[in-house]
Amino acid sequence: MGKRAQVGLLLTGNELMSGDTVDSNSSRIALALSEKKIGIAKKITVGDEPQLLAESLRNLCSESHTVVINGGLGPTEDDLTAAVVAEVLGCTLVEHPGAIAHLAHWCERRGLELNASNLKQAYLPEGADLVANPLGSAVGFAVEIEGALVIATPGVPVELTAMLPEICERITARVGGGTAFIRRLQTFGIGESTIQELVNACSEEWPSQVTLGFRSGLPQLELKLQVDDDVFLEQRAEAERLLHRLIGDHIIGEDNDQLALSLQRALVTKNMSVTTAESCTGGLIASLITREPGSSKVFGSGFITYANTSKNKILDVPKATLVKHGAVSEPVVLAMLLGALKYGASDIGIAVSGVAGPGGGSDDKPVGTVWMAWGTRDQHRAVRLQIPGSRDRFQILVAAIGLDLMRRQLLELPPIPHYIQRFVHRSE
Amino acid sequence: MGKRAQVGLLLTGNELMSGDTVDSNSSRIALALSEKKIGIAKKITVGDEPQLLAESLRNLCSESHTVVINGGLGPTEDDLTAAVVAEVLGCTLVEHPGAIAHLAHWCERRGLELNASNLKQAYLPEGADLVANPLGSAVGFAVEIEGALVIATPGVPVELTAMLPEICERITARVGGGTAFIRRLQTFGIGESTIQELVNACSEEWPSQVTLGFRSGLPQLELKLQVDDDVFLEQRAEAERLLHRLIGDHIIGEDNDQLALSLQRALVTKNMSVTTAESCTGGLIASLITREPGSSKVFGSGFITYANTSKNKILDVPKATLVKHGAVSEPVVLAMLLGALKYGASDIGIAVSGVAGPGGGSDDKPVGTVWMAWGTRDQHRAVRLQIPGSRDRFQILVAAIGLDLMRRQLLELPPIPHYIQRFVHRSE
Repeated sequence: MGKRAQVGLLLTGNELMSGDTVDSNSSRIALALSEKKIGIAKKITVGDEPQLLAESLRNLCSESHTVVINGGLGPTEDDLTAAVVAEVLGCTLVEHPGAIAHLAHWCERRGLELNASNLKQAYLPEGADLVANPLGSAVGFAVEIEGALVIATPGVPVELTAMLPEICERITARVGGGTAFIRRLQTFGIGESTIQELVNACSEEWPSQVTLGFRSGLPQLELKLQVDDDVFLEQRAEAERLLHRLIGDHIIGEDNDQLALSLQRALVTKNMSVTTAESCTGGLIASLITREPGSSKVFGSGFITYANTSKNKILDVPKATLVKHGAVSEPVVLAMLLGALKYGASDIGIAVSGVAGPGGGSDDKPVGTVWMAWGTRDQHRAVRLQIPGSRDRFQILVAAIGLDLMRRQLLELPPIPHYIQRFVHRSE
Repeated sequence: MGKRAQVGLLLTGNELMSGDTVDSNSSRIALALSEKKIGIAKKITVGDEPQLLAESLRNLCSESHTVVINGGLGPTEDDLTAAVVAEVLGCTLVEHPGAIAHLAHWCERRGLELNASNLKQAYLPEGADLVANPLGSAVGFAVEIEGALVIATPGVPVELTAMLPEICERITARVGGGTAFIRRLQTFGIGESTIQELVNACSEEWPSQVTLGFRSGLPQLELKLQVDDDVFLEQRAEAERLLHRLIGDHIIGEDNDQLALSLQRALVTKNMSVTTAESCTGGLIASLITREPGSSKVFGSGFITYANTSKNKILDVPKATLVKHGAVSEPVVLAMLLGALKYGASDIGIAVSGVAGPGGGSDDKPVGTVWMAWGTRDQHRAVRLQIPGSRDRFQILVAAIGLDLMRRQLLELPPIPHYIQRFVHRSE
């Protein structure tokens, strides 16, 4: 049977089978290979069992030009990869001089003695080619099995990541590949199906060389624009321009840009500062703003006023307003916003007060109700939304919407985005 | 060849092969099955390719008593599971009356018309047995292939989760299983190897019927105490008591308890309230406190004073102190703490000021330096730590340590935990 697949992936580790560890390594390997236009056809995951490992390795080698093994290179008895590869090859494990040198150097840098369990890691299948691990003690190695190039890699994510460029190079040398010219855009507040419909409605304008892909997360949706050759980069730019025309106000950045970074950029451009007055999100909005490096340029202070008394004492929300309208109300979030702008000495701000749940709801203001006010001293708005789902989801979405509403005001985009309709409270 | 495995898992979806989605479903399935003492032997993941899917399904059916297929049940053309199962069975897809009824009901509740793409989901392999999906449109189904029970399940995580009890029941009915009596404990501030060494040093006291397992996360480490029969529950309790003796001050709760919940409980017991004064964590500590339901019982307000002027204006940190010692200093965090306790009208608090990076470091106070002060008006301490790693990791660890230091003070545990040594700044 001829080999049909470029790459097969073999993952090993009892922790992957028990569910105690979520495998993120195969996603790392796949993303790195996809940049080289190389695809993984099949992935087999097994525990630390020599027979299953050997069978799975034989199966993948018979089908694929290259096989990446991930895991099982550590110093403990559970780490079987080298032994299994040797068994499949019908050879023995021998002390590899390069691996010894690597381990000696690794121990020396840490002031450790080279002990027996470390030395185990230097025994590799006869004739194996070392694949350098710049960070960890476990060396990778490459061998040939039934015409397939097999590369064994460590399971520790940072070590694998550091080795990926060399791994990709070796695989490319074997199977060819190329360069996938991928452009990633981050969006907020619009769904995959809506974007696809809008694009389909302009299908005659969409360059046929460009593939549109999606990768959904909470709260952002990533778009992937891909062409297979650099002669099509102009077409890719054309597709991007079309997307900007169709959904430009939802595009918040590129690569891994987050909403808070997009807000930071808008603030820097306008030389403005931002503040937060949070009740139901309890600091999450400020925390997202300050996760971004450089946030000190735009953020000086934020207030978390969870209790009614702190809304009054810290942000000057009048007691009478709290009593008359309740903490989750338009007058209260407007007063919170103005208080935060004043005491935070900031140009623009967001104030939120809502019922995150699971307790605290009423007929009038059920769990998921939130009032948000945003804007500057002279130009601000407020809106009441109803956000279904868990407490976690509520806080994540309220925070994201709050960041987006400020971003929109700064960039002079439609101030009340279309997606708000989904959440607007409808009084019956 | 006789079947050797209890369960095989087949995952399908191009998004799993491209790396765009990290598979967390197989971990969900494995954890649910492990509670029934049922193990997954092998997991195969392939894209939406009928031939590879069929081959992999045949392979797993020949080896396993049951096979769970996850993904490929949706309404689009990519969703191939039903068609592939029918092909492997050599039967046709037929409209399933139960599936039609489910879809009609599902659409009705959402005020939608039952359209062609939805209807596709009602075509199941002849003779298939419906597996109810209480949340989504995609019904699950069960068939027999080569003596294996095959259960097809949807890829949407919340839908799968809702179906897991029924899936586990069907698998248990086929392969037996039992009950794994698992007790989970959450710890903070101690590593897997240290715990293992401490336990090994008391090996004659450790009941041999109890297995100790670990599941590491950032910032917490979960311990799993497992026995295989309820006659050993007393031994499990004995092991738990031993762990409490050895590392009791690091045990913060059970199941999925987070540090902030542990703090909340200690505060409720003492009828005390907490406040936060955050610079470098920018609201993360308050956000963790308020992620927990019930936080309004113990948290009234928090302050984010990122800029020096806000430390002075909002928390009364004297300008002279800021000028003389700098924002990252003992006098400043102590003043922040006292200001927060006063203006937040709270009983206990935490104040942090540090250099999260990547910029802002100096020879004197490199990136990773943080001063923390915690305690009550009358009883408080401060410590300087050096936390290596990324900005994200720095903020997560500083926040976790801050929560833990308050928890320790409230519970009258060793106030300066052993792990602090790892991070204490050493002046040269």
